[in-house]
Amino acid sequence: MVKVALIGATGYTAYESINILLRHPQAQVTYLTALPDECGPITKIFPALVGRLDLPVEPADLEKLSHCADVALCCLPHKVSMQFVPKLLAAGVKVVDFSADYRLHDAALYEKIYQTPHTDQANIARAAFGLPELFRPRIIGADLVANPGCYPTAACLALAPLLQEKFIAPDDIVVNAVSGVSGAGKKADPAFHFPEMNENIFAYAVGAHRHMPEIEQILTDFIGAAVQVLFQPHVAGMDRGICETIYCQPLKDLTGDELEHLYRDFYAAEPFVRVLNCPPKTKDVTFTNFCDIFAAPVKGKVVVFSTIDNLIKGAAGQAVQNLNLICNLPETMGLL
Amino acid sequence: MVKVALIGATGYTAYESINILLRHPQAQVTYLTALPDECGPITKIFPALVGRLDLPVEPADLEKLSHCADVALCCLPHKVSMQFVPKLLAAGVKVVDFSADYRLHDAALYEKIYQTPHTDQANIARAAFGLPELFRPRIIGADLVANPGCYPTAACLALAPLLQEKFIAPDDIVVNAVSGVSGAGKKADPAFHFPEMNENIFAYAVGAHRHMPEIEQILTDFIGAAVQVLFQPHVAGMDRGICETIYCQPLKDLTGDELEHLYRDFYAAEPFVRVLNCPPKTKDVTFTNFCDIFAAPVKGKVVVFSTIDNLIKGAAGQAVQNLNLICNLPETMGLL
Amino acid sequence: MVKVALIGATGYTAYESINILLRHPQAQVTYLTALPDECGPITKIFPALVGRLDLPVEPADLEKLSHCADVALCCLPHKVSMQFVPKLLAAGVKVVDFSADYRLHDAALYEKIYQTPHTDQANIARAAFGLPELFRPRIIGADLVANPGCYPTAACLALAPLLQEKFIAPDDIVVNAVSGVSGAGKKADPAFHFPEMNENIFAYAVGAHRHMPEIEQILTDFIGAAVQVLFQPHVAGMDRGICETIYCQPLKDLTGDELEHLYRDFYAAEPFVRVLNCPPKTKDVTFTNFCDIFAAPVKGKVVVFSTIDNLIKGAAGQAVQNLNLICNLPETMGLL
Amino acid sequence: MVKVALIGATGYTAYESINILLRHPQAQVTYLTALPDECGPITKIFPALVGRLDLPVEPADLEKLSHCADVALCCLPHKVSMQFVPKLLAAGVKVVDFSADYRLHDAALYEKIYQTPHTDQANIARAAFGLPELFRPRIIGADLVANPGCYPTAACLALAPLLQEKFIAPDDIVVNAVSGVSGAGKKADPAFHFPEMNENIFAYAVGAHRHMPEIEQILTDFIGAAVQVLFQPHVAGMDRGICETIYCQPLKDLTGDELEHLYRDFYAAEPFVRVLNCPPKTKDVTFTNFCDIFAAPVKGKVVVFSTIDNLIKGAAGQAVQNLNLICNLPETMGLL
Repeated sequence: MVKVALIGATGYTAYESINILLRHPQAQVTYLTALPDECGPITKIFPALVGRLDLPVEPADLEKLSHCADVALCCLPHKVSMQFVPKLLAAGVKVVDFSADYRLHDAALYEKIYQTPHTDQANIARAAFGLPELFRPRIIGADLVANPGCYPTAACLALAPLLQEKFIAPDDIVVNAVSGVSGAGKKADPAFHFPEMNENIFAYAVGAHRHMPEIEQILTDFIGAAVQVLFQPHVAGMDRGICETIYCQPLKDLTGDELEHLYRDFYAAEPFVRVLNCPPKTKDVTFTNFCDIFAAPVKGKVVVFSTIDNLIKGAAGQAVQNLNLICNLPETMGLL
Repeated sequence: MVKVALIGATGYTAYESINILLRHPQAQVTYLTALPDECGPITKIFPALVGRLDLPVEPADLEKLSHCADVALCCLPHKVSMQFVPKLLAAGVKVVDFSADYRLHDAALYEKIYQTPHTDQANIARAAFGLPELFRPRIIGADLVANPGCYPTAACLALAPLLQEKFIAPDDIVVNAVSGVSGAGKKADPAFHFPEMNENIFAYAVGAHRHMPEIEQILTDFIGAAVQVLFQPHVAGMDRGICETIYCQPLKDLTGDELEHLYRDFYAAEPFVRVLNCPPKTKDVTFTNFCDIFAAPVKGKVVVFSTIDNLIKGAAGQAVQNLNLICNLPETMGLL
Repeated sequence: MVKVALIGATGYTAYESINILLRHPQAQVTYLTALPDECGPITKIFPALVGRLDLPVEPADLEKLSHCADVALCCLPHKVSMQFVPKLLAAGVKVVDFSADYRLHDAALYEKIYQTPHTDQANIARAAFGLPELFRPRIIGADLVANPGCYPTAACLALAPLLQEKFIAPDDIVVNAVSGVSGAGKKADPAFHFPEMNENIFAYAVGAHRHMPEIEQILTDFIGAAVQVLFQPHVAGMDRGICETIYCQPLKDLTGDELEHLYRDFYAAEPFVRVLNCPPKTKDVTFTNFCDIFAAPVKGKVVVFSTIDNLIKGAAGQAVQNLNLICNLPETMGLL
Repeated sequence: MVKVALIGATGYTAYESINILLRHPQAQVTYLTALPDECGPITKIFPALVGRLDLPVEPADLEKLSHCADVALCCLPHKVSMQFVPKLLAAGVKVVDFSADYRLHDAALYEKIYQTPHTDQANIARAAFGLPELFRPRIIGADLVANPGCYPTAACLALAPLLQEKFIAPDDIVVNAVSGVSGAGKKADPAFHFPEMNENIFAYAVGAHRHMPEIEQILTDFIGAAVQVLFQPHVAGMDRGICETIYCQPLKDLTGDELEHLYRDFYAAEPFVRVLNCPPKTKDVTFTNFCDIFAAPVKGKVVVFSTIDNLIKGAAGQAVQNLNLICNLPETMGLL
């Protein structure tokens, strides 16, 4: 039985992680931490957990952590995470980190995007990028996994097969993404006040979303050649789900059948990627760890449709998938 | 052309009032005020008004107000309103007040419910209660109208006919109400953060909602005998609409036909009350000033169903209806 | 490993049952049936199941069923169910029936409500009513369980403690209920077309819902004295969740504390009933098998708030709870 | 007072047209028609109209029409519309046609897309394309106006300025569009059943939507050179609103300021196009006749954001705008 601590246990991704782990046959939630002023019984923070989990949320105590946990899911926001992760590692626990702090290899790029010095550069190289479908060998055996962003997960799974085969131009890619509101976190915000956000959809972060360089880096790493992406996110009045529609410039003629075969071959052994022959619907992936993909040639371009649940395959589910990998458990355990 | 000022122009009821007045053939929005730190162009506060209204929101200046407005719609919250209303009246403008400050005749009751001294008791008696269907004669000619609460509007229109005819026990009435989230106002609040409120419904203010004594007073006034009501509100994940289901103890046998006739007769001349022969749907009244009502005998009780748009008949629409009355304009002007 | 067949595998309750059973450590879905024109791969009917369940939906073959299933979850509509259930029992499988066909002891009452002759009266007495919290002893050892209706589940769990203690009048109870739209089933209907139902709430089946006599019978059975209920359902624009607000006439003075103790004692050993000290929110029970309850004295009445997920505790979850009981598995298995 | 008939008065666009016309100071709804089996009081079809419009919906009678209407808003579906329009014109009424039947100049293209012979080719050339911001001179004086599709309205208003100035490549344009469900019409459909569509978003009609050639034709007409567009629609679980995000290949360097000036100049005199300096939100245009536009240079492309209400600027509002033009009324009458 793997003992799991949740560091920063008060947000949506922590809740989803707990929810998954409570059904996981080989994992047990043993320790919950948060900032001092957010502590209290976990059932006070998430009343839905009454009758399921009876643990306090406490200020992090590394001594205690080292005794009661094998793995920490670190659900802290970026900048805060890199203050904790080295201590967690030093305490002898493996870490799956949900923040952006260990995702980018290039500390200078991180510092530019997140407008803050990176205070734990030593551990950047130590971190495996936790997208198992593309980087599984690096994850197995790692003790620090940088869990990918939600948008990059959907985008990179959609683009990797085309880029690997050099079927599309790596510098003319548009990723149009729509996310449910939970992607913005649990903190109340005037823009996400129910009567403002309900029955509404709009674009944001034009040319400036932090997941744009993350997508580029993942894919550049994956194919070993520079990839450039125009990433445009939107938020829609729904709880969860990401719907990405990706427009690519083909380098050769591709039929629908060829595209389907490409994806089916590429993901033949993957339990969490489903290749469809029609556009996926977010509702078929919400509350699951699946990524659904469909690709089609349209008017001289290749269009790829990719959907995930931003909180599951885009965060907590993928974290448990990574936890399974680094703990030598079956990769799908607790996730199907 | 009646010139109208909006006092406290930054909330949802002010927005809805502006929206109605912009289509009103005999009214013109001339002046908008708010607290100093909320001022700025109205189109900054409500981007939906770009191209429709080009006015600044300014700190209230009574001198200016007295010149540029005939009527003020006072959209301030309770407690704040009673600080402004006497000045508005002194400046020579008529006032339709959206707050609770002038709704209750009994200052002591007000002080108990709102936990604050009433600082303008002199004007309580001056205020007409602005539910035209029940109190029209008092409203015409008034210079201060206390616009009713949203829940009381739906409840009192539903109950007045039965109580007036002494068809039901006045002390055994249950009002079960469900409201859209806009009823809670524009301010962001963790409970109304989109992912918390969406796909959710729950009761609140058990035994303690401020509209309970308001309903009782209105109906007591109307029939001249004590009325007692158990009022239980709920909020549901939708923008707007109130759905009230009211359970009464009949004092005589009543058939469905008799009930329908009672309501049709009572409201025969009313343009904004529609008597149905099936349960009303909130979606048929949202964005309108209608109250839809259906009554039926069920298992020894009389059940009355009543729906309104909390922001229109429950606030801004009724305010314009009152404005029309006190300005000698046709009552339905701008509202159908 | 208990082998489970789904009879009538194309509706929402079947889907939810499959979803639960796929995570159940001691149950396996082995056989899916439907009417001939609804057959095909289950993943065609529910694309969300791709990668999770690879079975055909076939016309029911009793020979095959008797070989490959120990228990059948019969998800057929009423009237159809009683044609299949005797055959399922004869084939040697235990049955949890989702329809109303075996819920009412009184065949004459059934025939009046459902306007059809009851064609399997022999098995009515054989059926245990599947509300474990109230009738567990009868369920254990049964081979036919009548799974309760969704509304009755929430109502009866809320009322049983008060009625058992004779704290309320058994003939003056109002159950005001609001349900998500999935309660109306999967079949497209103009009233539930998205743009009609979204942002909408309304009452229906005034004085005439089939769950009214079901609630009355369950509670009458439970306390051994006649119970009468005025049940008024509503449907709101949300997927799932039932929010019941129940108004009772107390026979003695009851404080809030006494009510809380009553409920905490009554449900002390129940894993799926959570007694709260504030009104429950449907979102805390959706996607779970919990029923959340809060009771309070309000203005001379006792008001009880009760929430469930209509598809889980109101259908599929409760069915698996019953399956666990009749198969001697831990009652909560697969459900927490 | 212009007398207006609604032909095909039972769908959403007819309802919205009625709703607008009831507030229009110079127009009056005088005659409503539908297929015989859909006739009856308009308030039976749209209960929200009780108390606002008391007219029967009758089978179309051209004799009656010619007496009681000056203009017909023809809300019939394509293929059906071209059977009625010539008769309406022959009866001496002007026509604003909501269908696609007179939008495409090229009858052969129409026949290919709509898979049906065009039976009224004589009137195709007679029809003005009803996008006033681009084709106002042709509309004034016309007696037949082809009201544009909803998606093309948002797309063409967004693209016209860039194309006219030859700032972008006319053959490398991607239009990613998301629509509310009302765009799919009033007829119940399994895909739009509330529990299927709620909390969901997905792409459809990949490479095959009928509005793709319509967009191309409008823009080709407007600039006098071939325009090619990849148009990809999506539907999201909301009632109304279209959010288009358009990716273009610039032919010269363009700053954000230059783009803003281009749009502000182009639409300086247009009352219904609002040029913003941030991405528009659908909720700011729903229930209005506005199109909100923002353009920005992003990573070597120009991205244009365009929002409308599919039922207002995308259908009924634009139809009334056209009605105003062909009846010599102020263009904004009834629409602000």
